[in-house]
Amino acid sequence: MKNLYIVAALLVTQSVLAADSVAPAPNGIVLPTDYKDWRVISVLRRTDNDTLRVIVGNDRAIRAVREGQTKPWPNGATIGKLVWRTKTRPEWGDSIVPDKFQEVEFIFKDSEKFSTTGGWGFAKWLGKKQTPYGDDAHFVLECFGCHTLAKENDYVFVEPAPLP
Amino acid sequence: MKNLYIVAALLVTQSVLAADSVAPAPNGIVLPTDYKDWRVISVLRRTDNDTLRVIVGNDRAIRAVREGQTKPWPNGATIGKLVWRTKTRPEWGDSIVPDKFQEVEFIFKDSEKFSTTGGWGFAKWLGKKQTPYGDDAHFVLECFGCHTLAKENDYVFVEPAPLP
Repeated sequence: MKNLYIVAALLVTQSVLAADSVAPAPNGIVLPTDYKDWRVISVLRRTDNDTLRVIVGNDRAIRAVREGQTKPWPNGATIGKLVWRTKTRPEWGDSIVPDKFQEVEFIFKDSEKFSTTGGWGFAKWLGKKQTPYGDDAHFVLECFGCHTLAKENDYVFVEPAPLP
Repeated sequence: MKNLYIVAALLVTQSVLAADSVAPAPNGIVLPTDYKDWRVISVLRRTDNDTLRVIVGNDRAIRAVREGQTKPWPNGATIGKLVWRTKTRPEWGDSIVPDKFQEVEFIFKDSEKFSTTGGWGFAKWLGKKQTPYGDDAHFVLECFGCHTLAKENDYVFVEPAPLP
């Protein structure tokens, strides 16, 4: 019986470790636990850095998309980018499909909490090990610097892809 | 009061019409009602016909992906492709993003029901109006003809994209 308790305790510990094993970003932002279940907002093929990206959103973001309320995006909306390296497939010319998983990127809308960076919090995690990006909290200046190009679009590059 | 009943009846009728307004494919397959909520399996940039595609799956398909049980895919798995025409964005070289919605394509795994076409039922709906593709049920020969190239992979072209 005692052994059973030990096994049970180990299982619980493992499960907690699994949930907690991804370190937060240097600015304290935590990886959303359910992002792999989020729904599609759009898709992007970047030729400059040879990646394929699917843009997904949490429930608040998807609701905003479907209601056409994304200029500006509402507080609570979170947008994620699943990013892969690429390879070609022989079936259709040089068509391009995902190779290795590269990273997952997020922007979190909270106009008060993140007022100094356009109302968005930034974070990304690299590779299958989900290593947080950035040496310290200043990494967001790099993110925000680039997103400033999209200031007229609430600092967001993605336009929701049309669906029926 | 009578007017209220009429309004209520009209609203109910409209809602039923909205749900039923997409015609089935010529082989009788019905458009899945919730496909816009399905989760991501992979992504594809086809250069031969200039489209971007996000591949999504119903719950059974996603479970199979996460359990690594896709060779063969289980009965009940349905795989969808959201397909867009493309345009370029100036921010990152000639990066490619969705333009107009082109179509949604599905394959439905039922090894008994669809035994003559590799265990898969085929259907697609075109454009925002979701017009069923195909003049009659023979359209599946065109689909299956192409998918025969992927016979070694359970007639499926897509490989689930790796995720952490």
